[in-house]
Formats: sequence, C-alpha cells, structure tokens
Amino acid sequence: MLYCARAFADGGDTVTLAGFDRLQSTGDLAFADYYTALSNADIAVLPVAPLTGEFLNAPFAKEPVRFSVIEKLIGEKPLFSGMSERLPADRLNIYDYSKREDFFVGNAVLTAEGALEAAIGEYEGSIYGAKVLVCGYGRIGKALSHMLYSLHADVTVAARKESDRAWIKAAGMKAVDYSFIEKYSYDLIFNTVPSMVLDRRALRQIAGGAIIFDLASSPGGVDFDYAREEGILTLHLLSLPGKRSPQAAGRLIKETIMKIWEET
Amino acid sequence: MLYCARAFADGGDTVTLAGFDRLQSTGDLAFADYYTALSNADIAVLPVAPLTGEFLNAPFAKEPVRFSVIEKLIGEKPLFSGMSERLPADRLNIYDYSKREDFFVGNAVLTAEGALEAAIGEYEGSIYGAKVLVCGYGRIGKALSHMLYSLHADVTVAARKESDRAWIKAAGMKAVDYSFIEKYSYDLIFNTVPSMVLDRRALRQIAGGAIIFDLASSPGGVDFDYAREEGILTLHLLSLPGKRSPQAAGRLIKETIMKIWEET
Amino acid sequence: MLYCARAFADGGDTVTLAGFDRLQSTGDLAFADYYTALSNADIAVLPVAPLTGEFLNAPFAKEPVRFSVIEKLIGEKPLFSGMSERLPADRLNIYDYSKREDFFVGNAVLTAEGALEAAIGEYEGSIYGAKVLVCGYGRIGKALSHMLYSLHADVTVAARKESDRAWIKAAGMKAVDYSFIEKYSYDLIFNTVPSMVLDRRALRQIAGGAIIFDLASSPGGVDFDYAREEGILTLHLLSLPGKRSPQAAGRLIKETIMKIWEET
Amino acid sequence: MLYCARAFADGGDTVTLAGFDRLQSTGDLAFADYYTALSNADIAVLPVAPLTGEFLNAPFAKEPVRFSVIEKLIGEKPLFSGMSERLPADRLNIYDYSKREDFFVGNAVLTAEGALEAAIGEYEGSIYGAKVLVCGYGRIGKALSHMLYSLHADVTVAARKESDRAWIKAAGMKAVDYSFIEKYSYDLIFNTVPSMVLDRRALRQIAGGAIIFDLASSPGGVDFDYAREEGILTLHLLSLPGKRSPQAAGRLIKETIMKIWEET
Repeated sequence: MLYCARAFADGGDTVTLAGFDRLQSTGDLAFADYYTALSNADIAVLPVAPLTGEFLNAPFAKEPVRFSVIEKLIGEKPLFSGMSERLPADRLNIYDYSKREDFFVGNAVLTAEGALEAAIGEYEGSIYGAKVLVCGYGRIGKALSHMLYSLHADVTVAARKESDRAWIKAAGMKAVDYSFIEKYSYDLIFNTVPSMVLDRRALRQIAGGAIIFDLASSPGGVDFDYAREEGILTLHLLSLPGKRSPQAAGRLIKETIMKIWEET
Repeated sequence: MLYCARAFADGGDTVTLAGFDRLQSTGDLAFADYYTALSNADIAVLPVAPLTGEFLNAPFAKEPVRFSVIEKLIGEKPLFSGMSERLPADRLNIYDYSKREDFFVGNAVLTAEGALEAAIGEYEGSIYGAKVLVCGYGRIGKALSHMLYSLHADVTVAARKESDRAWIKAAGMKAVDYSFIEKYSYDLIFNTVPSMVLDRRALRQIAGGAIIFDLASSPGGVDFDYAREEGILTLHLLSLPGKRSPQAAGRLIKETIMKIWEET
Repeated sequence: MLYCARAFADGGDTVTLAGFDRLQSTGDLAFADYYTALSNADIAVLPVAPLTGEFLNAPFAKEPVRFSVIEKLIGEKPLFSGMSERLPADRLNIYDYSKREDFFVGNAVLTAEGALEAAIGEYEGSIYGAKVLVCGYGRIGKALSHMLYSLHADVTVAARKESDRAWIKAAGMKAVDYSFIEKYSYDLIFNTVPSMVLDRRALRQIAGGAIIFDLASSPGGVDFDYAREEGILTLHLLSLPGKRSPQAAGRLIKETIMKIWEET
Repeated sequence: MLYCARAFADGGDTVTLAGFDRLQSTGDLAFADYYTALSNADIAVLPVAPLTGEFLNAPFAKEPVRFSVIEKLIGEKPLFSGMSERLPADRLNIYDYSKREDFFVGNAVLTAEGALEAAIGEYEGSIYGAKVLVCGYGRIGKALSHMLYSLHADVTVAARKESDRAWIKAAGMKAVDYSFIEKYSYDLIFNTVPSMVLDRRALRQIAGGAIIFDLASSPGGVDFDYAREEGILTLHLLSLPGKRSPQAAGRLIKETIMKIWEET
C-alpha cells in the first residue's frame, strides 16, 4: 500500500498515510494520525484485505484500531477498498477495486511472474523443454500457461470446461481434464484451482519426479500430506503479488481506483 | 558434472566418477579412484573448466591431483573436455564440447532463464510493461531479449552491428547503438557484452532508477564503482547455468558429447 | 462435406455419399442413392447448413429432395448435423456438431487465416507494423487479433466488455471501446461483430485510408453505403472456412462428430 | 518506385519522376523529362534493378533510354540505386541501398508475408497444425519459419550450418539437414535456397502430398520437371515484395536511402 500511495503521489495527488506510525516519513508522502488524514482527504483508500477481525489491517501502526472508529471518521466520503464484502454493510460509498477485471488480470500476471521465478529457482532443469502441467485455466492459469509456453516449455493445461480446452489447443498447448487417467511424467506442476484437484489418486498418476507449486489460496488444491509421505517437493506460494512485486501491486490498485473514479 | 554423469547413466551407459571422494555413492553411479575409473572407461569426460592451475578441477576430491597424472592415465582414449585450449597441447584425442554451437546456445538459454529469475526477484514491478535494455545481441542477448519480449516487456536492445539492429526490429523490439545519446529511463538493464559498454557516461544517461544485471564474464561490462557511488543497484551474475540449472547444464554436456560421438 | 467424408474414410470408417449424383465416384468413397446409403449406414451426417427451405441442402444432387423424405429414411439412427434448430423438432436422435466449442474455435481459426490472406493480398503495405483495428473479441476476434499481433502488426481491439479489454491488454495489444471518440488512422480494420458497430460516425473517425474487412455474417457490421460514398474499400468476407479451407473445415466436422460419439 | 516517390513526398521532400510518361501526374508528384528532373534534383534514385541491358529500367517510359545518357545527366550528384554492381563502374557517387541489412531484412519480411498469403490460398487445410518444411535459414527462411511457427504450424527447418540448427531448435522448431534421410510427409514445403536442394531424391522422400513454394530467385531450388511428372503442385513465387506489397517495398527503399543519407 506504500507503493500505492507513491503511485498516487507520482500522479500529482496529495497523499496522507495513516496507520503507518512505525515508519519514518519519506519526502513526498505525508504521515498523520487517522483523524487528521481523513479530515483532509477527499477519498479514503483501504488495503486489499481491509480488516483483521474487527480491526483495521494496519501492520505498521503503533496500536490496532477498531474499524468502527475509522468508519465514523470516513463518514460519507468515497471509500475505495478491496474485499468490501468483509466491511460492515451500512456504508453507502464503498467502491471495491478488487472486483474489477483489470485488477484480477493485473494480479494474475503478477502471480504468474512470481510462479515463474519460483520455478526457475527450484527446478534444476530449464523451463525450455520442461514438461509442465498447469491445473486450471482461470485468470492465473491462463496467464501462467501462456508465459510458460512462450518460454518453450511443453505445456499441458487441465481444465474442466470443454470450451477452455478448445482455446488451450488453439493456443498451441495440450489440454486434458482432471481425470488424469493416463500416467504421465511431468517435470513441473502448477495448481491454480482452489479445490482438491491434485488428490492422492492424481498425484500417483502424474507427480512422480515433479515439483509442485500450489498457487491457490489456502487451503490450496494439493494433498500436501500425501506429497510429503511420497517425498514430492511441494511449495504453496501465497500472496505472490504483494510479496514479489509490491510496486506493481500498488500501482495496479492506484490505476484501478483511477478507472473507477473516471467512470463515475 | 554429477548431473552429466547421471544423464549418461540414464542413457544406458556405464559411468564411473572419479575425484568425487567426499560424496557418497548413489545407486546407479559408481565412484572409484582415478586409476580404476580410467582403466575401465572407453572415454573420459572432464568439466567445462577442466583445470585449476596445474591441477584437475575436482572440488569434491579428497586431495588435488596434477593434471599430468590424469593425462598419463587417460592415454590415448578419447577425451571430452570444455575449454580445451587450457589443456597441454600434446594430447591427440581431445574433443572440445564447449566450442560447439548447440552447447553455446543451450547455455545461452540457461543463462537467460537465470537472469529472468533474478530480475523477477529483485525488481518490485512486473516484467510486463517494464522498460528493459539488453546490451548485446550475441547468444545470451538474443535468448534473453526474446524471452523478455515474449513476457511483454518493452524491450530495447543495444547492438553494434547494423544487421543485428535490423533483425531486432524485425522481431518487434527497439534497437539502439551504444552511443546512448538520448537520455532514457529504463527499469531493468542487462549487459551481456564482455567489455566496458556501460561506462559512467552511459550510466548517467540511462541508469537512473534502473537495476543493472551484468551477465558478462569477469570483469563484466559495467562501471561498478560509479554505480555504487550513485546508488545504482547492480548485480554481477556469473556462471548462471551451473548455479541455477545444474541438471540442464549437465544434460547439455552429455548431449553435446553424444553428438560429437555420432559425427565421428 | 466431401472432405468430411474423406476424413471419415481416412479414419477407417465406411462412407457412403448420397446426394452427390453429379460427381463421379472416387476410389475409396462410395456414392449411392439416399435409400441405399441410409439403409447401410449406422449414422447419418448432414452439412453445417442442412436445409435450403424445405429441401435438403445438396448442391451436387441431380434433383432436390424434401427433407421429410430423408427424415423417414434416417429413422431412429443417430443423426449428426449443424444448425439443428432448423430441422423439424420431432427427431429424437439429433446431435448438433455446430454448437460445440471446439467446432466454434476451429472455425474461428480458419476464418482468421482466411482474413489474414485477404489482408496480405489487398493491402499494399506489410502486416508488420500496420496499424490494425479488430472489432470484437469473440472467437474470431480473439483468433485474428492474436494472429496479427504475432506478425507484429500494431493491433488495437475494440471490445464492449471491460474484462475482455483487460485481457487484450494483458496479451500486449491496445484495447478500446466502440465509442471511437478519438480520431485515429488505421491501415486495416476487421469487423467480427454481427451488428452495426462501424456506422458512419465511427467510419468518419477511423476509416480514412483504411481497408475494411467485414467478417460478420450478413448483413455484417459496417455501413457499406457510406463506405462506398466515401470511397473506402470494404470487403465482406463470408463463409471463409468453407471457401478457403474446405479440407480443414471437413476434418473439423469429422473430429467434432468423433468427440460427440466418444462422449455418448 | 511510384510508392517510393510518394514516401519521399510524404516526408516533405520535393519529388520529380522521370521515365513515367505513360502515367498521368498525380497531385503531389511532379512528372518531367529526364533532363528537367535531374537538373533540379539534389539526388537521383534508381530502381532496385536499375538496368534492362544497356537501357534504364523504366517500363512506364514512352521509349527506352540508354543508361549512358542518364549517367551524363546525373553527373556528380549522389545516386542511390539497387544492384549497383550492374552499373558502369566509373561513377563516383553511387550508394547501393540494396546491400544494406535493413533492406534485406525488410524485404525478407515482405517476401515471407507474400509466401504466407500464397500458402493460405493454395492449401485447403489450415496453417494451424500443418506440417511445414522450410528449406534454408537465411533471411527469408528465418522470417518465414518464425511467422509459420507463431501461427502454430508444426515447423521443421532444413539448414546446412550446425549453428543455425541450434538456434532453430532454441526457437521451438525442429531442425534437419538436407540429407532427408528419413521419409516424412509434409503438407507444405517452402524453399528459400538458390540451389538445387529439392532434387528428385529429396522430393521422393518428403514431397508426397505436399504443396511446394519456391521463393528462391530463378532458377530456384526445386526439380520442377520431376515435380510435374509426379503431379506435385509447385509454385515458383518471384519478386514477392514488388508484386504483393509495392507500398511497403517503396517505403523500405525510401527509408533505407534516408538512413544512408544520415550516416554520410
């Protein structure tokens, strides 16, 4: 979110950060208490995950503050937040930037790049020519499979929908469903599906010798216990954009907010 | 080289490793002393960098052995080595696998993947849309620039030859020479040229805000002192294939040797 | 459909063609009258457009035959046809191959290739670097825009949905909506939308100097009258797969039928 | 060359065309006789193929003129021409635009696009998935093979040099040499090599069922007689840029001349 603030500042807006007490002020970004910051502001911006329980998600703040306090201070001003379904429903002026497609797609690209980095780092072979399986052809699966394909990996994508499989093949890759009837030896497996698609039956068919990267939110889509028993190296990569590319993630939030602003 | 041995074993050949005393034997790879190993062998394989001074380059051996000893043991058997110019010239049967184009190209791909990994890790933005400069359009420059372009970075390649610049543009990228007359702001700069192309004059024009990755062999092509003074983050990435993708590097050596064998 | 028959024959099935009286038999494809052909057959295959009014669509037949006659002869055998909504509804055993996604996608690829051929032929410049606008990001728009992009055209795609525009940009191309507020000069414009998106207002903004290719089914999506008045070269390309790539179109029908067969 | 003239005019230069008597003047391009045109001009531009025997290559002129006449009129002014080796050698001020790499590469792209158009038109299948052989990895072979690969054809490139084959494989395609030891069935074969690489022995191995496009200058690289005997469809495509993309070809000449001008 620091990067988000910087992106706004770079665009010429006046930015005040609140809830960052434990950091020192950096030149063009002003820091203040919640009251001051929100009094001066025209709009308020909350993080992608705005709450921790009943408190504002502000890890750099000196002490936690209940969201009900912040809510009163925001009043009727436009509030931009992620995951707005977690906020109390009586606010009138909430704009959820995390539900917009360009936000999803932007994050999918960042997640895919982070997964690519992890793969090159962990895998001792080359992506070029590697036999790769990507489970899922949603946003992350799409971004990632195309990236791997363009690096000349031998990519297979597992997708549930017949239509997705048609497009996967049209893009030059192989398509399968989740039955994993055929035994096959992949070098790298990426899961993007937030449900147990790589259960022990599937792992028995395809996971011998592979490294598995689970990109789906907790609890993921891989039977980690079975993998551990069988000695299959499995990495659960969470929150990749925020961890790997905070600058890009922050800019993405800022640009999504700007688009919402222009459209209203 | 362990991976190289495994690649040969996987292909059905009998492999004996010598000079790896400090490692335990793993099932299908036999370990022995130099005399035994070389007596039984039809061919001998040395590492890419075969010597450390007058001694065989064998970091896992209990004690260093002079190459002259090894030379006598090899006798007239075919010897496959890298950098053969460093070996004494009276050997008749040296085949240098490191001078073959498929070896160069294979290593270029591995180096480029390693550079990509470093870039995604160090850079807090996304490769997608990043303004990237690649200096050099030799093997590594070519492999790397095309990789970055396929990940939708905004790629400019600096090349000395007019013909290279024509092909860079035909591939959809921008091409410049090394004069760097125009001031320009790149996010990422990769150097692949083993001579000082990014001197302080060049760095003043283009390096503000960028992260620089030098992939050229020591001493590289960047004025590191000036970079340090100016607070420009610079990473000198050496021996990427061996460090990042030992399995692929080993297989590449084995396959190059096989090709030489088939052709003679 | 001749190619479809050949594809079945190549796959080992016995094929009898009926309604092709005006052609001579070719070795491995048997020709017969409707009664004989349908008596011997296990399944019946009709064209993508099965009817011409009340008659079977059989341009090579000696004389037209009412579909009601054919219907009785088919009886209860599985019938594979395109556009089944045009057939009388009391048949129980109709499988419509033209509604499957792989058929749609396959045809989209063929249509896009045909459009590419027309563009290279008509346009006196090179696709490389040409400023291209593709209207629509449905199946044909997607296939075509990606093709042009990979040939290094400067591609903009007009799409109605925000989510489509996000993915267009993720793929490295530009995205706009149909308001065409900005005046812009394209070299080539392709329409894939079956409604009037390129009306005279739009044409005034963007069509100066361009060649327009309308790929949408009649009546298309371009104000042809206005284009003619203004001297804008416009081509309405219909039924491209059947005209340009009958072999691929026929094989696609056969493979779609095989997939339906395997799934039931 | 008309397009070349227009390109210069669009760039703000004053253009006078001589030797185009049989065409009417078009607004911004002035037509005149050789004497007037060359007197007023600072530079002279000749076609890619400047001569027809001893005469200037001017198909639109009323009557042919000997080059010696033109030569005197040009005097000492800079002369830009293609194929300058065909011009008398005593001229001091000849700049040959056809020997520059960007001209070669530009023409390679135009030739490749023309070949692609011919292939889509002649071949009744789809380029997607077609088994294609490209002979030669020079400029045209490189441009064409990459184009076909990006359209998802199954591309094999025959190249003489080991280094070329290494890069062909690095780009994701298959590489072979010209021995054609293995019998293989291609759908499309493109030759770019100006010597007999597809002799009858080769054709017997690989040409069954294929369409052959010869892009090499006369006499080409295919045994046309044998092809005709065997009923193999063969097309000899010559001068593609000038025929298919005269506008792009003309602009390319103009831009190449501008670059030469800037460099001197």
